[in-house]
Amino acid sequence: MRDVGLLFPGAAGDDVTDDVAVLRALLRAEVAWVRAQATAGLVPGPVADAVAAAADGLDAEPLTARVAAEAAAGGNPVIPLLAALRGAVPEHAAVVHAGLTSQDVLDTALVLVLRDAAASAAADLGRACAAAARLARAHRDTPAAARTLAQAAVPTTLGARCAGWLSGLHAARTFVTDVGDALPLSYGGAAGELSGVARLTDDPFALVDAWGAALGLPVPPGPWHTVRTPVTRASAAFAEACAALGHVAADVLQGTRPGVGELREPAAPGRGVSSAMPHKRNPVLSVLLRRTAIAAPHLAATVGSAAGHAVDERPDGAWHAEWSAVRELARHAVVAARLGAELLEGLEVDTDAVAANLRAALPDADGVGAAPAVVDRVLRATGFAADPGTHEGDA
Amino acid sequence: MRDVGLLFPGAAGDDVTDDVAVLRALLRAEVAWVRAQATAGLVPGPVADAVAAAADGLDAEPLTARVAAEAAAGGNPVIPLLAALRGAVPEHAAVVHAGLTSQDVLDTALVLVLRDAAASAAADLGRACAAAARLARAHRDTPAAARTLAQAAVPTTLGARCAGWLSGLHAARTFVTDVGDALPLSYGGAAGELSGVARLTDDPFALVDAWGAALGLPVPPGPWHTVRTPVTRASAAFAEACAALGHVAADVLQGTRPGVGELREPAAPGRGVSSAMPHKRNPVLSVLLRRTAIAAPHLAATVGSAAGHAVDERPDGAWHAEWSAVRELARHAVVAARLGAELLEGLEVDTDAVAANLRAALPDADGVGAAPAVVDRVLRATGFAADPGTHEGDA
Amino acid sequence: MRDVGLLFPGAAGDDVTDDVAVLRALLRAEVAWVRAQATAGLVPGPVADAVAAAADGLDAEPLTARVAAEAAAGGNPVIPLLAALRGAVPEHAAVVHAGLTSQDVLDTALVLVLRDAAASAAADLGRACAAAARLARAHRDTPAAARTLAQAAVPTTLGARCAGWLSGLHAARTFVTDVGDALPLSYGGAAGELSGVARLTDDPFALVDAWGAALGLPVPPGPWHTVRTPVTRASAAFAEACAALGHVAADVLQGTRPGVGELREPAAPGRGVSSAMPHKRNPVLSVLLRRTAIAAPHLAATVGSAAGHAVDERPDGAWHAEWSAVRELARHAVVAARLGAELLEGLEVDTDAVAANLRAALPDADGVGAAPAVVDRVLRATGFAADPGTHEGDA
Amino acid sequence: MRDVGLLFPGAAGDDVTDDVAVLRALLRAEVAWVRAQATAGLVPGPVADAVAAAADGLDAEPLTARVAAEAAAGGNPVIPLLAALRGAVPEHAAVVHAGLTSQDVLDTALVLVLRDAAASAAADLGRACAAAARLARAHRDTPAAARTLAQAAVPTTLGARCAGWLSGLHAARTFVTDVGDALPLSYGGAAGELSGVARLTDDPFALVDAWGAALGLPVPPGPWHTVRTPVTRASAAFAEACAALGHVAADVLQGTRPGVGELREPAAPGRGVSSAMPHKRNPVLSVLLRRTAIAAPHLAATVGSAAGHAVDERPDGAWHAEWSAVRELARHAVVAARLGAELLEGLEVDTDAVAANLRAALPDADGVGAAPAVVDRVLRATGFAADPGTHEGDA
Repeated sequence: MRDVGLLFPGAAGDDVTDDVAVLRALLRAEVAWVRAQATAGLVPGPVADAVAAAADGLDAEPLTARVAAEAAAGGNPVIPLLAALRGAVPEHAAVVHAGLTSQDVLDTALVLVLRDAAASAAADLGRACAAAARLARAHRDTPAAARTLAQAAVPTTLGARCAGWLSGLHAARTFVTDVGDALPLSYGGAAGELSGVARLTDDPFALVDAWGAALGLPVPPGPWHTVRTPVTRASAAFAEACAALGHVAADVLQGTRPGVGELREPAAPGRGVSSAMPHKRNPVLSVLLRRTAIAAPHLAATVGSAAGHAVDERPDGAWHAEWSAVRELARHAVVAARLGAELLEGLEVDTDAVAANLRAALPDADGVGAAPAVVDRVLRATGFAADPGTHEGDA
Repeated sequence: MRDVGLLFPGAAGDDVTDDVAVLRALLRAEVAWVRAQATAGLVPGPVADAVAAAADGLDAEPLTARVAAEAAAGGNPVIPLLAALRGAVPEHAAVVHAGLTSQDVLDTALVLVLRDAAASAAADLGRACAAAARLARAHRDTPAAARTLAQAAVPTTLGARCAGWLSGLHAARTFVTDVGDALPLSYGGAAGELSGVARLTDDPFALVDAWGAALGLPVPPGPWHTVRTPVTRASAAFAEACAALGHVAADVLQGTRPGVGELREPAAPGRGVSSAMPHKRNPVLSVLLRRTAIAAPHLAATVGSAAGHAVDERPDGAWHAEWSAVRELARHAVVAARLGAELLEGLEVDTDAVAANLRAALPDADGVGAAPAVVDRVLRATGFAADPGTHEGDA
Repeated sequence: MRDVGLLFPGAAGDDVTDDVAVLRALLRAEVAWVRAQATAGLVPGPVADAVAAAADGLDAEPLTARVAAEAAAGGNPVIPLLAALRGAVPEHAAVVHAGLTSQDVLDTALVLVLRDAAASAAADLGRACAAAARLARAHRDTPAAARTLAQAAVPTTLGARCAGWLSGLHAARTFVTDVGDALPLSYGGAAGELSGVARLTDDPFALVDAWGAALGLPVPPGPWHTVRTPVTRASAAFAEACAALGHVAADVLQGTRPGVGELREPAAPGRGVSSAMPHKRNPVLSVLLRRTAIAAPHLAATVGSAAGHAVDERPDGAWHAEWSAVRELARHAVVAARLGAELLEGLEVDTDAVAANLRAALPDADGVGAAPAVVDRVLRATGFAADPGTHEGDA
Repeated sequence: MRDVGLLFPGAAGDDVTDDVAVLRALLRAEVAWVRAQATAGLVPGPVADAVAAAADGLDAEPLTARVAAEAAAGGNPVIPLLAALRGAVPEHAAVVHAGLTSQDVLDTALVLVLRDAAASAAADLGRACAAAARLARAHRDTPAAARTLAQAAVPTTLGARCAGWLSGLHAARTFVTDVGDALPLSYGGAAGELSGVARLTDDPFALVDAWGAALGLPVPPGPWHTVRTPVTRASAAFAEACAALGHVAADVLQGTRPGVGELREPAAPGRGVSSAMPHKRNPVLSVLLRRTAIAAPHLAATVGSAAGHAVDERPDGAWHAEWSAVRELARHAVVAARLGAELLEGLEVDTDAVAANLRAALPDADGVGAAPAVVDRVLRATGFAADPGTHEGDA
């Protein structure tokens, strides 16, 4: 199996959530565990250095393929990964993974990947917010035909529509950031009872704390092997990001349609070309955003289904269903946030078309109500009121 | 159409989220808007009293059926509801719904219903948490066979398993409570531009604030007609509650199975009877919880799908797809929380069976690792460490 | 709980799939079982008549509410229903449900409801097909701007677009019809082993055959208590119907938008009115169709999730999750098919707008390729080539 | 992005549905189109040979990565693929893709991949059916405790449970086979109007027929660019396969649990090992099957959601959402069918445990009803009654 993004345009460059990134995170979790043992005085520092060096020396890409191939036997990739890592430092094999269970390491590695994905998505959502805020401010007073239920409704301003985008993007960005920051270490050993860790030390939670510190991850009060809140919460945030961007894309697609022509996606060499119709410029960024908005809720629901089937001290399939779904959802959010930032930063507005469409659809309209004041309120609430005094009291 | 819960056992008593509750919330939203106008000095107080009295005088149950029947023509129930309410106070018809749009009222009414549902679910989740905490404390040190991937693993304590339940239930309760408290007023008028409100008053946001105050709802910076964060966030919380309860149910179902026999659901007259096998006592509470855990993620995904298709100033179908899905999801959470509280409050543990199963599965096992300390940590973190000093330092 | 369709406009008139219809189907299944016993000579004919009369004498609507309220104790509605039916013929209580289990009756009753729903949906899909065929034929040669990826592409004919609708509707209608006809009786007794039936007769399958004959249902080789193919297959068909109608709605919504104006939904008194904007005529049929297209896949997935968790001889929650999901999905299809037929039968085409939009978007276009021939081929393949010789060879 | 199955154990060996397979199918579709032109006498045979040779000469793996990277600009991989193929035969560039559109080629390539996946899954489902039939026959008369709602119910036979597996697997296999065989060619050109093809030839459908013949694909009456029945139907079949296998896995997992011990998964070197507990043998095949059963309905729902949003002559995002979802679902079915065949072919039954559990749970039980006759009926109906006369009349 070799998937490189052929069927998910926009993801080919993904090195935040792909299998190689997961493998690196697995290694990082294992190495940090040995470092934690060193911090606790259970193994000498040079041993931890040797394990870290051995991990660094592994060639991640072929190892990922090998581990993937061998993962079926035990049902998870940690077992063959351990064999490889221990094989690279046979003299210290005993300290590698000592007292841990596969789920500690796989959950923690996925958390590291999700945290990176959250950071990437949040950064690009921040760019998208800033761009939406600029558009909202620039078109705060630009009259435009509001459309409801697909029909011309009343005048609003183009800025009010953009402020709606900003509202959604800002909420999503906040959620993604908060959830990313809260993603916790996974620990517990064979069955969440830490007996393996307790055999290493009289103070198992201190060792766990050291592991969390080495990875920069908060340590929760107990194991979450069967309490999947961290993963469902992350899924909710990533899905919200995809929905907020889907909303933007839906508006842009309508805005670029023949007969509307109010918006144009940013131009770039080769972008939006057609294999059959040289004259076309397709709104491909929005198309790809809409795609992620369609798929994301189903991925989040997969994670939610898995969470509700958690059982015993480690689920018999529900845990496994979560891995690729939550990774795929994180990827959707990362890709969508990047595409969305690019879309909004370069979005072109044809104000003549906006005005003409308003006249055509609502010839007798006068006034835009409190739309500009709505823009101001949203800008203030989201921290984008660069010049907060300017529009005060306009409502 | 007459649905009374026949195919969703446990929901027959639902008067928090059913259609009659929604209709009452719609009336409440409309009446509060007239009261807000009175507060703002735009209509005389007695007019608001008259409208309120007229709304009270409507017979909710037949009106619900009539409004439902007439809702298809305009695609939403607010239009026929308004006709009924205005018909009941024809002399004040003009102030009813003045400056509002259907979406303001329907969204706000759904928020009122979701808020009630969140309060109900949170209260029962609180009961479930307390019961899980009692179980965790009582069985903090009861050795039990941990099971991972459906197989006997290592010893843990029964209390550690219950502490896992508590972790999930507590997180869900917190999320449901927070989301319920944050559910906002919906406003904006025809297209989120407030022009209708602006025609009533120079200070439309003051009028909106008065509306929010009358309903006890926070007023967000802008309209959310096409920014569905409040609804997707509520859905995430309700789904998390169903998953946390599904996790408990999965464990109870395993615990009651033949060959295990560690747990028994609380007995009650008629509960768990079989139409064909008089000797059986079915774990019906857990069965019904598992049912909600299976369905809930799909309902949340429906809401998420709808959110990602928001477009224009009011979506052309995506909004409509949300209504019954989010209501149904809220109902799932309300019913599940009640069943779950009942289950946990009366759950019977057969400690002899627990001990026998441990001996049979893991004859050579000794020690439960740090399981009791995990229990203590979870009890403290969730606020259930009634006697916080007792177990300190046990790890 | 009293739901009457308030949050699902279009469903208020549903008496095919609502709880009262389910209750009636439950009674019908129980009565038919007694009749089958009479056919097999196991009970006297007059006893069967008496049971049938007793069932007829029950007041379905209040009984539905009572049964729903009592369904929670045993986890399904059959147990309280039986109590009511036996209470109405106490002298023949022993023959009622003799040898059956709840699942036999509930599954069979749901099958009866789904069959009625399939018949209703198929009939309305047939109307929709005929209307789409008429449109395809009428506009076989009407040049129109094709749109791909939201942009003007090349000329096609309006009829070709309508032929696409017809293709999808026809496939869905065929699928719904086939699946509806194949829906089987559910039988098997307590655990699919028919021991209760075998105690009544030496030839249990003959008795089962008589039951199937009494209800007009095919008898499958074995029980399907844990093999949910009949229900997942029905779900796939209903979902396909909703998708085919969603496709039509998406095109109609685009066609009615400001700046396009090629299509108008059929007018009817009160239809498409707005609570805030008297000038608007909303495309409410399409809006409601789009709503069902958004929700239906999630309902089908709920059924699919349940099917994959089937276990033992009767699932411990997965079966229960199926009931309301598949009923709701059937309702979606029934309502959507009716709305879709109404939409297509009255759809108005503004050919001037079609021509003007083509000129504006593709001024240099000439020719519509083989679009008319595509129309002919689709009409022939779907059986709507009323005058099959006319257009032959046009390609 | 480099995904090799790390998070989906069992898929590492997938070369039926991975990106490289898709790329090869894209090339195959393009080459076959040139061959069809040769068949129709529009280009010389040697030109077609040259294009085929050029396609063969491309190095699929690096090309896949390059095409994936360049797919974002136009939103689909066909555009960069064409550039590569034309670059390899610049002298015949004009005949490559002549008259086609991206969607013709991408849909057709996905159909080729889905057809291969269906063939693979059907073959392995056939193995699983045969193994289930053997188990059903072998244990036709082995008394076992039936379990309903997680509790001991009545005696049945182990064979009856296996016959249930067979029923579901057989239905799924039939569905997958039928759907695979029916997967059609996709054609239509820029907007389903075939104008590009009509410019090449007076008989565009003859050319299309030749294309279908070259690929062994049926040619449907019209384009299905926006009528996604072929894809939703395939999804329904793949999801049904995953559910049927999930049902088997659920039973096996219960059968292997401590306190039950009736079933054992087939042993294999390294299979079922634990990273923390050397004594364990995890039922990893069933765990991985359960995983696919949890995820598959959501993937099918993604495809269904996309289908319901089809619009215009090519959807603006809904089409794109389909690609990776349907491929992933096909992969789930392929992997699950293979794992399921392996599981059932080697499943070990501990008949002593079966008997002991029956005695313990149902000490007074006598007789297994008509369970053996049910086995016979299912074996006959599925074509596995090797010795059809043997058990006749047993019921």
